[in-house]
Amino acid sequence: MAYGAAPMNPVAAFDDASLRKQENELDQRLTRLKSEGLRLDMSRGKPAPEQLDLGLGLLTVLDAADYRSAAGVDCRNYGLLEGLPEARKLLAGLLDLPPDNVIVSGNSSLELMHDSVARALSHGVPGGDGPWGKGATTFLCPVPGYDRHFTICQHFGIGMIPVPMGARGPDMDAVERLAASDPAVKGIWLVPKYSNPSGITLDDDVVDRLARMPTAAPDFRILWDNAYAVHELGNGSDELKSIFAACQAAGTPDRALLFSSTSKISLAGAGLGVMGGSDRNLTWMVQHMSKRTIGPDKLTQLRHVRFFKDFDGIKAQMRAHAKVLAPKFDAVQRVLESELGGLGVATWTKPRGGYFVSVDTLDGCAKEVIRIAASAGVKLTDAGATFPLGKDPRDRNIRIAPSFPTLPEITKAMEVFSVCVKLASIRCSPAPSS
Amino acid sequence: MAYGAAPMNPVAAFDDASLRKQENELDQRLTRLKSEGLRLDMSRGKPAPEQLDLGLGLLTVLDAADYRSAAGVDCRNYGLLEGLPEARKLLAGLLDLPPDNVIVSGNSSLELMHDSVARALSHGVPGGDGPWGKGATTFLCPVPGYDRHFTICQHFGIGMIPVPMGARGPDMDAVERLAASDPAVKGIWLVPKYSNPSGITLDDDVVDRLARMPTAAPDFRILWDNAYAVHELGNGSDELKSIFAACQAAGTPDRALLFSSTSKISLAGAGLGVMGGSDRNLTWMVQHMSKRTIGPDKLTQLRHVRFFKDFDGIKAQMRAHAKVLAPKFDAVQRVLESELGGLGVATWTKPRGGYFVSVDTLDGCAKEVIRIAASAGVKLTDAGATFPLGKDPRDRNIRIAPSFPTLPEITKAMEVFSVCVKLASIRCSPAPSS
Repeated sequence: MAYGAAPMNPVAAFDDASLRKQENELDQRLTRLKSEGLRLDMSRGKPAPEQLDLGLGLLTVLDAADYRSAAGVDCRNYGLLEGLPEARKLLAGLLDLPPDNVIVSGNSSLELMHDSVARALSHGVPGGDGPWGKGATTFLCPVPGYDRHFTICQHFGIGMIPVPMGARGPDMDAVERLAASDPAVKGIWLVPKYSNPSGITLDDDVVDRLARMPTAAPDFRILWDNAYAVHELGNGSDELKSIFAACQAAGTPDRALLFSSTSKISLAGAGLGVMGGSDRNLTWMVQHMSKRTIGPDKLTQLRHVRFFKDFDGIKAQMRAHAKVLAPKFDAVQRVLESELGGLGVATWTKPRGGYFVSVDTLDGCAKEVIRIAASAGVKLTDAGATFPLGKDPRDRNIRIAPSFPTLPEITKAMEVFSVCVKLASIRCSPAPSS
Repeated sequence: MAYGAAPMNPVAAFDDASLRKQENELDQRLTRLKSEGLRLDMSRGKPAPEQLDLGLGLLTVLDAADYRSAAGVDCRNYGLLEGLPEARKLLAGLLDLPPDNVIVSGNSSLELMHDSVARALSHGVPGGDGPWGKGATTFLCPVPGYDRHFTICQHFGIGMIPVPMGARGPDMDAVERLAASDPAVKGIWLVPKYSNPSGITLDDDVVDRLARMPTAAPDFRILWDNAYAVHELGNGSDELKSIFAACQAAGTPDRALLFSSTSKISLAGAGLGVMGGSDRNLTWMVQHMSKRTIGPDKLTQLRHVRFFKDFDGIKAQMRAHAKVLAPKFDAVQRVLESELGGLGVATWTKPRGGYFVSVDTLDGCAKEVIRIAASAGVKLTDAGATFPLGKDPRDRNIRIAPSFPTLPEITKAMEVFSVCVKLASIRCSPAPSS
């Protein structure tokens, strides 16, 4: 079933006795699964130990004679606010930007996004007329989306307008209408490639429309979180058009703030965050950063430079990651297909990259699925997490994160999940209007 | 001459012809020094390469089999927002706090201070009635002080009231009066030990008065930047009373936010920032941090744990640092004493720790000293940098940072500096009222 198409409610096709019988069998199956004492976590997009092993070389790649950059900078000391030049060069490809338009920072791109929003609120951005925080601020939030983006908005009192995410990107008619109509609409969150959680990649046309759409706010910003820029799964790859190039062509060069990280390339806790944008945006970033720090940890940046050497090294690393991840994603598909295929009680995505499978149950079932699964020892991302304020109006979206558990664990967890979906479909789905 | 005592103007004791003769001789000496083509930088408290060599073991202390914490946490992966437990234990001594009241973060304590101020402005702090930013906010700023503290205030539009720093700490009568009189006075910056730049350590009595003074703002905060907690120079050590213990005893447990780092213990660019305080303050910090990051770089934290082992390891490291630094500080004292001793044109500090010597010239001379020194190839911290908004009302304070240059460079730079002080004293000091 195509992503985004709502499953029809097939439960109505059964008579009550038949439903009770099915429920009973599912309940017994769940009881058996519970008796296994499972403790499985499918909730967060966390690399598995085998993936982290791929980056073990980072721990030993420097030695006591190797701490200087190509230009002779002592990476042990203070300085280089924008990051090590060779690290900027190495990672610029994640943002499709020239190295001079990229800043390499610490171990988190989330903090770069958080700080960019905080700075816009306290001081404003280039092209604006002062701090966003002096008036109301609203963001467009394609849903389902990344919970931590929404949490940043919630934390700072930024209003959120959900916009449906389709197979090619957000509903651009809605985005254009909302952005054009209200100067309080200052931004949009996007994970443009292998989106969290739906796995889709924005169409070229969507990128172009984002770049050229009229906005009521002169300082509108696209928060372009390209977290999965090179995160293929081995079954082909999507191409993402450069938002920066599109904005330059459209005469809106300052519209996009771009982010990425090596968290799921090198080491999740000890990688590098990157951000970038137009010259004006970069100057703005640096000016704010200079009040906050003297510079990033350049040794960790040098470790990445030595370990990966160049962007081809990063791509080779991602092929190795895919070998670990692909069987896990395959297992998710296999169990979902064999347990739920053809039943019409759920739809799910088959991504070519990223870290998630997005499942839509029948309306009103997601919370119950997650509750039952938890009772059987399978932890899933909270229902609603993929929506602003944790509120999925149709209570149907569930994000599956298969990267961390082992293959047998995933197979088992997806079996539990599938049983829970079927049970919840019987118990929770609203009776169809007759 | 005791620190803080203003030098009297001795220039008036000479007749005009004698002054012209002296100026001429000094000018000739400066010309000779200029001809040496010097390029010396005494402007920033930056460790020297020999000091960084002391931490070289950090680059190789981990290996491909050593990435787990004592509790088995995979330090390569996400998580542990408050830092690695053993890193918190290792560094708690820098803040004189229990490990549970300490957060270990990335490579900068400046960013922890910046973010704490930003969070107070946007959201408020425990015990307050909302965001500081909804009204006027003012900080007390002991002067001379650390320029980057003042820059944070300036960046966020926080007013700054300079308070004189004496030999035992800030003028507490002024601090108490200002804190008690205006609820907009929300905080005070302090480098409590081996203060930047004056090198003084707060008296126990000052610590107690800070802890117990009535404040008009119920959410007043002491920003306690204990950057030089263990940074002795080998000529004895100062004892700093625990501000947290004093606040607990005074019934103001939430008043102090404490900060430190290993930037000048391990590696300047690749160390660890720490912050801490009461349980309530810690909860507040963590709650805000959780919106911003999933956790710090735990591998670098583990490197520190393996390398230093315990607080005694840190103290041993600091003795090794002192062996590098002490001769440099001695050279500063030696040249100042031989060139300027007894002349009455400058006073300077003789710190037992920290990174700076603070010089007071005759009133109105500091800018000229720095200008002439620059013309001779000696870069000093900008005049006024040690005051809010860069404005030293008496234009007399100059911060000398002798850590980075070599011993011959320091000796030469201090000679240039001394000649410049003498020249400026003749050219710039105001005629005494007759």
